[in-house]
Amino acid sequence: MERVYNFSPGPSMLPVPALEKAAKEMLSYGSSGMSVVEMSHRSKVYMEIQKNAETLLRELMSIPDNYRVLFLQGGASQQFAMVPMNLYKTGKADYMKTGQFATKAIEEAARFTDVSVVASSEDKTFSYIPEFDRSKFNPDADYMHITSNNTIFGTRFTELPDTGNVPLVSDMSSCILSEVCDVSRFGLIYAGAQKNMGPAGVCVVIVRDDLVREPMEKTPLMLQYRTHVKEESLYNTPPGFSVYMCMNVFQWLKDLGGVPAIQKINEAKAKLLYDFLDESRLFKGTAERKDRSLMNVTFVTGSKEMDEEFVKSAAAAGLVTLAGHRSVGGMRASIYNAMPVEGVEKLVKFMKEFEAARG
Amino acid sequence: MERVYNFSPGPSMLPVPALEKAAKEMLSYGSSGMSVVEMSHRSKVYMEIQKNAETLLRELMSIPDNYRVLFLQGGASQQFAMVPMNLYKTGKADYMKTGQFATKAIEEAARFTDVSVVASSEDKTFSYIPEFDRSKFNPDADYMHITSNNTIFGTRFTELPDTGNVPLVSDMSSCILSEVCDVSRFGLIYAGAQKNMGPAGVCVVIVRDDLVREPMEKTPLMLQYRTHVKEESLYNTPPGFSVYMCMNVFQWLKDLGGVPAIQKINEAKAKLLYDFLDESRLFKGTAERKDRSLMNVTFVTGSKEMDEEFVKSAAAAGLVTLAGHRSVGGMRASIYNAMPVEGVEKLVKFMKEFEAARG
Repeated sequence: MERVYNFSPGPSMLPVPALEKAAKEMLSYGSSGMSVVEMSHRSKVYMEIQKNAETLLRELMSIPDNYRVLFLQGGASQQFAMVPMNLYKTGKADYMKTGQFATKAIEEAARFTDVSVVASSEDKTFSYIPEFDRSKFNPDADYMHITSNNTIFGTRFTELPDTGNVPLVSDMSSCILSEVCDVSRFGLIYAGAQKNMGPAGVCVVIVRDDLVREPMEKTPLMLQYRTHVKEESLYNTPPGFSVYMCMNVFQWLKDLGGVPAIQKINEAKAKLLYDFLDESRLFKGTAERKDRSLMNVTFVTGSKEMDEEFVKSAAAAGLVTLAGHRSVGGMRASIYNAMPVEGVEKLVKFMKEFEAARG
Repeated sequence: MERVYNFSPGPSMLPVPALEKAAKEMLSYGSSGMSVVEMSHRSKVYMEIQKNAETLLRELMSIPDNYRVLFLQGGASQQFAMVPMNLYKTGKADYMKTGQFATKAIEEAARFTDVSVVASSEDKTFSYIPEFDRSKFNPDADYMHITSNNTIFGTRFTELPDTGNVPLVSDMSSCILSEVCDVSRFGLIYAGAQKNMGPAGVCVVIVRDDLVREPMEKTPLMLQYRTHVKEESLYNTPPGFSVYMCMNVFQWLKDLGGVPAIQKINEAKAKLLYDFLDESRLFKGTAERKDRSLMNVTFVTGSKEMDEEFVKSAAAAGLVTLAGHRSVGGMRASIYNAMPVEGVEKLVKFMKEFEAARG
């Protein structure tokens, strides 16, 4: 079976070498005589995999020594609760409302802490990143929360708010490892694996030591960062296969030249698509130019019927999962790290032909 | 590389046909042109996998229609909190303390509800299942919690407590699908996948409709059963690969003849080992005969040094992960569904030779 170019927002394409390695090792990893999915998480061979995944991620992101790296379950959605429960001190938190996941994070946090929305782009269907009005920031907040890349609306933060001593927390699910990022600007970063790292089922948390503290009352043990810091993400059985695949993907990225190298490729891929959108008479980008995402390119034709026709005919040509999120419609091309340049070139070519055929 | 016989308590051996299928489909599942780990969880092709996994499990366990089947993250450890948080009504719960995981379940529940330990086998290192003294059961308890099989100590419940109208909740992580079980006797069953179902990273919850209710205050959305019931385990990105592998394992079990067929095989495997233990001069089973587990066979030589020597030499002979849990020492042979009879035969043969060589 020929592989397709899969523009899914996540789970999404993974690098072929990482998949091939997994296929080859599915019945026996190295000289272990067993699959990774059959290994005790207390075995030396598995612990080395997890350690190696962490070491590679630390290297790729230049994570400072005073940050812990955790491999947890429950995805970003569980972090929406874990962040307020674990960082609770004054019981106040600032949030920027820049999309649907940001909104979900706010709604969940509001059950545990006093949330203040200090910036929002809801007025224009989240099609831009709002200006920061620093006078609105609460200097006593336990943290400020942003969503670095907004998967559904195709926007991203290109600069970070200056929060002074207030720790900056970011949901980087859809942009981690896509461009160079200064981890030291953040108190906590979290990201579901299923876009730029590996299979769904593991969520990476990078947390500064001083933020690993006593959580609010009645925080389940499994939702306490300190539980997982103390046990190095082995408090209970970890999602071993997902961690192993992350290791394979991290290795692929390292071999490729690391984050600076993939950033160049990502910028080139995004430019191909955005340049075409800017000159097209049929297709139109939906995000404000200055805030365009490198990972999720959202666009429309202006006609719901033609959007549907486009998605359908593209799929027939091996360019799949191009429908926009069910809440907004239109199209979305998610072009994460593992999407090859050829996939984007083929998509642009297809869009040009689709447009030409319609006069 | 030759595969070993892996007696790991979990993650543990999986059926070779399920692994071979995964290897074969790693770069493209069916005619999809993509790996299962690359699929949007909203795609038709993935949703069919998850639906199929549920249908097969319902069939294998004859799950009545008034029970929901959920595929969640966080393992049994997260259920230790979810059970008391979601079943909270009177704020009282009965627990049986029959091992280390039962103890962890009790400790976690005690943070959310008023726990009463109505039976315990702690006095003899959890080497037996205690008698039920029904006069100790609380008729107003929100539920009664048991651990059907105690992985570390090698015991299992062979009969169930009669709890009247109080729902019976069981952690079946290490025995689900190993023998016929009447689901209608339970209000809720949960089980981490990594022993009898698939890779770590997914936890199956089988819950009776009337127990899916408003949870206690400040229960995170991701920890509410109703969230996952409403969204059919697709509230957020599910651990797709683990669910897919469970489907493969369920299919393997169905092809084999289902739970009645595997129960016979499991009984035969356990008998091989226990019969030898009962006649051996060197090795001695540690669990009381009447309560012996079919899945985890625990034994000792009486000498720590000889135990270590045995574990080491067995590993050299391709019989691996036989060390007992770090908290109890000795040996443990976990012989879950996917352990072939040949593995147990080879182990018994090795034990006989080890014994003979020592006079």
